[in-house]
Amino acid sequence: MKIGILGSGQLGRMLALAGRPLGLTFSFYDTPPNPPISDLGPYFNPDVDEDALSKFIDANDVFTYEFENFLPDLAQKVAEKKPFYPFVENLARSQDRGREKGLFTELDIPVPPYQIAQSQGDVQKAFETLGVPVVVKTTTMGYDGKGQAVVRDLSVADTIWEKFQTEVIIEQFVPFRRELSQVATRNKRGDIVFYPLVENFHHEGILRYTLAPAPGVSAELTVQAQNYVRRILEHLDYVGTCTLEMFETEDGLFANEMAARVHNSGHWTQDGAVTSQFENHLRAIMDWPLGKTDVRCDTAMINIIGELNNPLQVLEMPGTHLHLYDKSERPGRKLGHINVCADSQADLLKRIKDLQRFLPACAPALEA
Amino acid sequence: MKIGILGSGQLGRMLALAGRPLGLTFSFYDTPPNPPISDLGPYFNPDVDEDALSKFIDANDVFTYEFENFLPDLAQKVAEKKPFYPFVENLARSQDRGREKGLFTELDIPVPPYQIAQSQGDVQKAFETLGVPVVVKTTTMGYDGKGQAVVRDLSVADTIWEKFQTEVIIEQFVPFRRELSQVATRNKRGDIVFYPLVENFHHEGILRYTLAPAPGVSAELTVQAQNYVRRILEHLDYVGTCTLEMFETEDGLFANEMAARVHNSGHWTQDGAVTSQFENHLRAIMDWPLGKTDVRCDTAMINIIGELNNPLQVLEMPGTHLHLYDKSERPGRKLGHINVCADSQADLLKRIKDLQRFLPACAPALEA
Repeated sequence: MKIGILGSGQLGRMLALAGRPLGLTFSFYDTPPNPPISDLGPYFNPDVDEDALSKFIDANDVFTYEFENFLPDLAQKVAEKKPFYPFVENLARSQDRGREKGLFTELDIPVPPYQIAQSQGDVQKAFETLGVPVVVKTTTMGYDGKGQAVVRDLSVADTIWEKFQTEVIIEQFVPFRRELSQVATRNKRGDIVFYPLVENFHHEGILRYTLAPAPGVSAELTVQAQNYVRRILEHLDYVGTCTLEMFETEDGLFANEMAARVHNSGHWTQDGAVTSQFENHLRAIMDWPLGKTDVRCDTAMINIIGELNNPLQVLEMPGTHLHLYDKSERPGRKLGHINVCADSQADLLKRIKDLQRFLPACAPALEA
Repeated sequence: MKIGILGSGQLGRMLALAGRPLGLTFSFYDTPPNPPISDLGPYFNPDVDEDALSKFIDANDVFTYEFENFLPDLAQKVAEKKPFYPFVENLARSQDRGREKGLFTELDIPVPPYQIAQSQGDVQKAFETLGVPVVVKTTTMGYDGKGQAVVRDLSVADTIWEKFQTEVIIEQFVPFRRELSQVATRNKRGDIVFYPLVENFHHEGILRYTLAPAPGVSAELTVQAQNYVRRILEHLDYVGTCTLEMFETEDGLFANEMAARVHNSGHWTQDGAVTSQFENHLRAIMDWPLGKTDVRCDTAMINIIGELNNPLQVLEMPGTHLHLYDKSERPGRKLGHINVCADSQADLLKRIKDLQRFLPACAPALEA
């Protein structure tokens, strides 16, 4: 079977590498030159060939995407002709933080108090209602901390509106212990598998590393997270791998954001779980049985960001697995990741310390 | 770095899939249409382009091979211009069973008594000296049981010569308990890593499945196997992954054959070891540190031969990993393999029984 992927980045690359052993072949639709998916299948580029889209659609049997910030009508055009998963409505919803929060509320999943603002007046009103600090985000097109600001001073409402000039969502800043994320996969026939909750550490809005499983997670918390994600997946008739980012607070879990695709906080599954999130996404869209999500070892996923920092040196360290994306260095750019496995969380923290040149100075695990 | 691979089969495919995460890219030189390496990098085909070889050499930095039954002068032409590992002399030796046996003897590695025969008279003489049963093999070009015969009757010397009409090696049939193989990797700087000994089960000359680690291997046997392989690798200044097939007898290990490349009995390492034989082969030829060879779980590798037999059904079975090669069905052809993992050898044997439709009726593990 031939899988068409909208997008050409590292997620598409890792989907293809996971899918070839299953007998799947891949092609890609996107515009950048020399993308991470190079030499992993035909590349349909509308900048080079004006018929690229129809050729891409003709060339494949089942379609998915690896990057959601493209025009929804592109996905729609594909979905009108061929099977496309996750469904376009799900994609559109996860592209809009306002609609996404509305869904969480509708499904009784706690979220921080929030308001949508479409004018400077709205922003002012939201600041007055919610108080500070608040987090301001564009409702669309943001990722990796782009299109976000934390506001601690009520007087900046006018500056904020000038900065964004587009619909924003303003959320009360909820004091949280940590960010957890729940990766899960649902296939067409409705089976769902859950990976364990993982703990994410961000710096300047970008995920720097993930601990899997998250330390000290109670059975109750696990059930709560799985229930929330199950509600979302079943309500949406979702097909594929999905991630819900949540805040752990004194009052339980609050939903933050959903990624309607494979996600950076699931990259550890390549080496730390029986079946990777990438393989399970493909099994889901093919309506094949889903693979076991059991943990094989305590694992940390460390992003390589901005500069490569001689990553081959990590090959000497026990338990490390290198995953590069064939991207050139650029500040803030995700160039690859390292999965580090260990037999215990204590050993894992030691190994993370050995990799500290890949982490920002303030990385909390280094204080452990 | 760009790796050029001579050959286009499943071993090249799995090398490329293992190497892309390390930032390596691949191209291939061979002639079949639609080979297993399709869509994993440029394909240089001399049937299509008479300058294919020089273009292939120009396009890559480091070279290796995945199938050794091509003309040695092809490898020589590459090696004259660019780094080529394992060295061409090693390749040539492993292509010739007579020279290979000579090497084992020279290095004090026990082999079954044997003679080389280049005429009907030689065959007759060998039969008289060695007695029956004997195994007759062409000294070159044989694999997967092709070019082999077991002879139990002294009177067939003339028929045998008529059948082969080329230099053969005639070996005394040594009564052995089982076939074991030792996969190891040596890098350019001389580091060597050993995988555990594994047990191989053949049927009609073709490897059907491998148990890893081999059950009931003593520390003494492990040391003996590692010593033999170390002698070979160091004597040859070998660079890459290599496999030595051995017979376990009452008098210890006897060397059977060496594969100077990644090998079918090492496929279990993709899911059962910390680092696969494919990744370690690439690390070796790049002179990078070698990866750990620790076992992650008891693993069986089961070849899918001749017909696919609905392999997707195995995705439902716990601990199974599917590796297809994108080849069409044909009797005796290796189309893919299944790696099955379990937490104990007892559980593993149960899981193998669940996969018995992929195995010949007489598979010994099924009697366990």
